[in-house]
Amino acid sequence: MKAFRFTGDALVAIDQTRLPTESVWLTLRSPQAVAEAIRHLRIRGAPAIGVAAAYATALAIDPEGSLDKGRRDLARAVGVLVAARPTAVNLAWALRQVTEDESVLARESARDLREAVVTRARALEEEDERLGAAIGRHGADLLRGIRSVITHCNTGALATAGPGTALAVVAELFRREERFEVWVDETRPLLQGARLTAYELQEAGIPYTLVAEGAVGALLRRGTVGAALVGADRITRNGDVANKIGTYNLAVLAREHGVPFYVAAPFSTFDPHLASGDAIPIEERAPEEILEFGGERVAPEGARAWNPAFDVTPADLIGGYITERGVYRVPLPDEVFRRGGETDGS
Amino acid sequence: MKAFRFTGDALVAIDQTRLPTESVWLTLRSPQAVAEAIRHLRIRGAPAIGVAAAYATALAIDPEGSLDKGRRDLARAVGVLVAARPTAVNLAWALRQVTEDESVLARESARDLREAVVTRARALEEEDERLGAAIGRHGADLLRGIRSVITHCNTGALATAGPGTALAVVAELFRREERFEVWVDETRPLLQGARLTAYELQEAGIPYTLVAEGAVGALLRRGTVGAALVGADRITRNGDVANKIGTYNLAVLAREHGVPFYVAAPFSTFDPHLASGDAIPIEERAPEEILEFGGERVAPEGARAWNPAFDVTPADLIGGYITERGVYRVPLPDEVFRRGGETDGS
Repeated sequence: MKAFRFTGDALVAIDQTRLPTESVWLTLRSPQAVAEAIRHLRIRGAPAIGVAAAYATALAIDPEGSLDKGRRDLARAVGVLVAARPTAVNLAWALRQVTEDESVLARESARDLREAVVTRARALEEEDERLGAAIGRHGADLLRGIRSVITHCNTGALATAGPGTALAVVAELFRREERFEVWVDETRPLLQGARLTAYELQEAGIPYTLVAEGAVGALLRRGTVGAALVGADRITRNGDVANKIGTYNLAVLAREHGVPFYVAAPFSTFDPHLASGDAIPIEERAPEEILEFGGERVAPEGARAWNPAFDVTPADLIGGYITERGVYRVPLPDEVFRRGGETDGS
Repeated sequence: MKAFRFTGDALVAIDQTRLPTESVWLTLRSPQAVAEAIRHLRIRGAPAIGVAAAYATALAIDPEGSLDKGRRDLARAVGVLVAARPTAVNLAWALRQVTEDESVLARESARDLREAVVTRARALEEEDERLGAAIGRHGADLLRGIRSVITHCNTGALATAGPGTALAVVAELFRREERFEVWVDETRPLLQGARLTAYELQEAGIPYTLVAEGAVGALLRRGTVGAALVGADRITRNGDVANKIGTYNLAVLAREHGVPFYVAAPFSTFDPHLASGDAIPIEERAPEEILEFGGERVAPEGARAWNPAFDVTPADLIGGYITERGVYRVPLPDEVFRRGGETDGS
């Protein structure tokens, strides 16, 4: 399963707001079109939007134009794309991987520049596949013998350019364990759990059961769930984690019931520049996501809503960080932050 | 605002599954029709279904028929109605108030029997109005000076035959406090918060903001919410509370943030026959409530869901029980259980 592919002159992406009932592929021919798709969550998931945005910068560069114009258009595209969603750190990181790479900086024509950008984006995509596989293995080693997990939002192939983060661990556990089941909370307001994670698990033949977020406490109280597994949009120096709204609730409920709570994320999610979660910018989305459902009004006219897209889970609720290099715990060592910060010293 | 009224030959009820976008009044002419409306949550809320069911038993009695037949039809109607929803204790209690009342037992014709039943149901309705007002006053005394509360599900005029339980406290606080606001979680899967509580607050001019249940942790972490207020479907001897699914999550999150958590309920909600929450029957509803939304499929074909309608909040998370006679704390005294048990000795 692939959420998008680059065709040379377009990014072709499945519209994740229409899944699972419709498979609509979008052909996006400009950085603006990709930024718009990211803003509307047609392309989503912290690692996925990083790779998609990296490809999108190539679409800004006219190979027939001057190198100078190509560089200016590239810089402008980065500005448009980085502003599409403020919370995930992978987006800015992936764009820096493209624009600050030696192979990109050294090019001598617009055509060369565009090719170098595409090559760099492709490298990021391939790396995401390797990282996901490695996260899956390390997570399954950690959770050996656990046969029931709960997850939140979507962290699989639709959220990354590879097999995912938390969902890569789920898939690897399913391969290894004889009996295995996944509890998926629906993840209001946009139902990424009920729509996207359910879709991926269904396709993979992994047994799962959906629950409303309100039922998570009652579920954990039954004592049958062995671990909670989530992804991350940004992890700060002290180990605080920004992730999809509702993650913090799950972490508090997991601790209340003695269920270990793990975050699965590649090094690019660790932000060396922020000391703690208080400093993470939290995107607030349109109240209509709460007041309406599928375009139909549910709340009365005049209703107000508060709709933060993310919350911050403090480090003390997190049992471990499952990365491509293994499992870490607080205090987090410098090495996990090197990817996020590596271009700052160059 | 009234959720229903008895016209003599029908119960006329607003269809709560269509609010707030449509106001559709149902004319229900038999106990079966009322039971069906209760099962489908067109009439809902523990105190409201008790009073509605009490009126509905009158619809079973043919005033032209024999007294014997009237008594048999009455008993049969009670059986149909009490099975409509298993978790709320007020339903069975209200039906006992009708069938075991001296004034009902003593009647000598079917017409008289029917009249006595209606009189008894009307007394329950009027009592619900007094109880709601008293709960509102005791709650507002308890929460004096608190200017921001969060509530779950719907506990107002639509859920009772009077001003409500937790929402009666909210309304009284709004009358007394200079600045006052309510946070309303949407309450998946059936959105009683977003649809019904929002509708009642909007009509009453009380400022409120809707949030997804996933955002409740992030909201409480901001430290501005002074109390959590919910209703109850059943309270056991040890103080455990069955209420709408998601109540337990809210109670755990409230304690995590030092926010006091209160349950507002009349004495008829206290069940003297159950020692603890483990013994409460928890209704599980159709998976489609999770898998679909407004009749439209959201989850993939083949998806499974677990959909308990209620959860149990253990007594140690509950700061107080706001009743018509004042605020109680555990261990609960016998007097609060007298209503639920009063007919057992008669």
